[in-house]
Amino acid sequence: MPTLERFGVSMDQELLGRFDALIDKRGYTSRSEAIRDLVRQEFIKDEWADPDTEVIGTVTIVYGHHEHELANVLAELQHQCHASIICSTHVHLDAHNCLEVIIVRGRSSKVKSIANTLVSTRGVKHGELVCTSTGKRLL
Amino acid sequence: MPTLERFGVSMDQELLGRFDALIDKRGYTSRSEAIRDLVRQEFIKDEWADPDTEVIGTVTIVYGHHEHELANVLAELQHQCHASIICSTHVHLDAHNCLEVIIVRGRSSKVKSIANTLVSTRGVKHGELVCTSTGKRLL
Amino acid sequence: MPTLERFGVSMDQELLGRFDALIDKRGYTSRSEAIRDLVRQEFIKDEWADPDTEVIGTVTIVYGHHEHELANVLAELQHQCHASIICSTHVHLDAHNCLEVIIVRGRSSKVKSIANTLVSTRGVKHGELVCTSTGKRLL
Amino acid sequence: MPTLERFGVSMDQELLGRFDALIDKRGYTSRSEAIRDLVRQEFIKDEWADPDTEVIGTVTIVYGHHEHELANVLAELQHQCHASIICSTHVHLDAHNCLEVIIVRGRSSKVKSIANTLVSTRGVKHGELVCTSTGKRLL
Repeated sequence: MPTLERFGVSMDQELLGRFDALIDKRGYTSRSEAIRDLVRQEFIKDEWADPDTEVIGTVTIVYGHHEHELANVLAELQHQCHASIICSTHVHLDAHNCLEVIIVRGRSSKVKSIANTLVSTRGVKHGELVCTSTGKRLL
Repeated sequence: MPTLERFGVSMDQELLGRFDALIDKRGYTSRSEAIRDLVRQEFIKDEWADPDTEVIGTVTIVYGHHEHELANVLAELQHQCHASIICSTHVHLDAHNCLEVIIVRGRSSKVKSIANTLVSTRGVKHGELVCTSTGKRLL
Repeated sequence: MPTLERFGVSMDQELLGRFDALIDKRGYTSRSEAIRDLVRQEFIKDEWADPDTEVIGTVTIVYGHHEHELANVLAELQHQCHASIICSTHVHLDAHNCLEVIIVRGRSSKVKSIANTLVSTRGVKHGELVCTSTGKRLL
Repeated sequence: MPTLERFGVSMDQELLGRFDALIDKRGYTSRSEAIRDLVRQEFIKDEWADPDTEVIGTVTIVYGHHEHELANVLAELQHQCHASIICSTHVHLDAHNCLEVIIVRGRSSKVKSIANTLVSTRGVKHGELVCTSTGKRLL
């Protein structure tokens, strides 16, 4: 269990008011928890700035599986990188559309490059990478 | 919280000895828990015997994704049944082999038929259906 | 198969140069594919702006499973919303940390509210929602 | 591409008739494909008979998440074995019941022991291990 320290923050009244409204809307019940999350976000950005840090990312893509032999292309891409890809989850949205979430672990430059390749593949209608952390350096 | 009842079971000493050895090997710490699991198994078999009961099944398949346009065939099959298939999880085992677990919910006859089609597809090296329950009728 | 139309775009030379560099870095091999992706992104933002459109979102969270009975809290939250949550995928990162991706489908206001609750839960170290589409309105 | 060889099999007419009916019911369109699957099944059993072969297994469990702090217990078990567990997929069946599929890779004795522990945990209503293969030794 880490020791908790407490420190003061001074903030312009209006800014603080808007911040309170925002975190309330986002479901936080404590200002400290919201501030801790902001601080952790910066650590994650920092991890991803170094191409050699081990990170974890999730790539969400939506595609129509009929077009352009896309299922094959995506399977091929993922197998070439099988050492970095932990698993992927498919949801068959309807008779044509797929959602797939691919969980990737590795050096941040490699994870970014896999995400870029997946998202930019012709036939992928939408794609987005969430850059997150293996959690080791986040308290 | 259900009311617990207790009842006696008489069993041949040798059979009981072998049963105790078996459940110990399987990690049970209580005979009652092991017996309850046997009873629930029978309810599940019973659910699956009626083609119209709503059940849930998981289909595990291993296949080489290069052969026979298999990834496409499997994606096509799953989309035709998208209303029954909740999701599927892929693991890229190496540069050639895939493991996929498909979670299917629906009438037992439909779930069996989807499982049979997946397992018997040319190029699927191994496949197996686990017949389980939506849990509603199992205490 | 949709009919392809072609239209011209005029753009400041410097801006175009920087755009080409960006899409090259992101793995696009065609300017048209990159432009199509930008257009689709706007449609997705538009879908999410209406609280009643049916959308799909993926929530990525990283948490330490020991703290604060968090696994229980998260399971409880997800069960209360079980009609909207399609499935979730766990990766056990190490002896303490979990990554979980939760796939949520429903009215955009409901999906956002589930995501906010998950991300703001005490003990969740990092969380992010990807707002995507069921694919129906995206060509 | 492997070279195909062809060999003859003699079989009692009645047995063959029943076999044809069975494989037809299971969706096979070719007797050879059905026979190949039987042969591969034996290789898989053989792999699992040796405690030190690297295998892959999928464990399907159904449980009521409210009882006995079960979500915590299962998360704890899985973290202790995080090096063997690739990922797990959850489906929230209703307000009380969960289906979880856990994909495990490792020495067959280790995979069996993890499966036994999961299935025998108090509160797990039904559980089953599918013993499959990493696919390397299966043509």
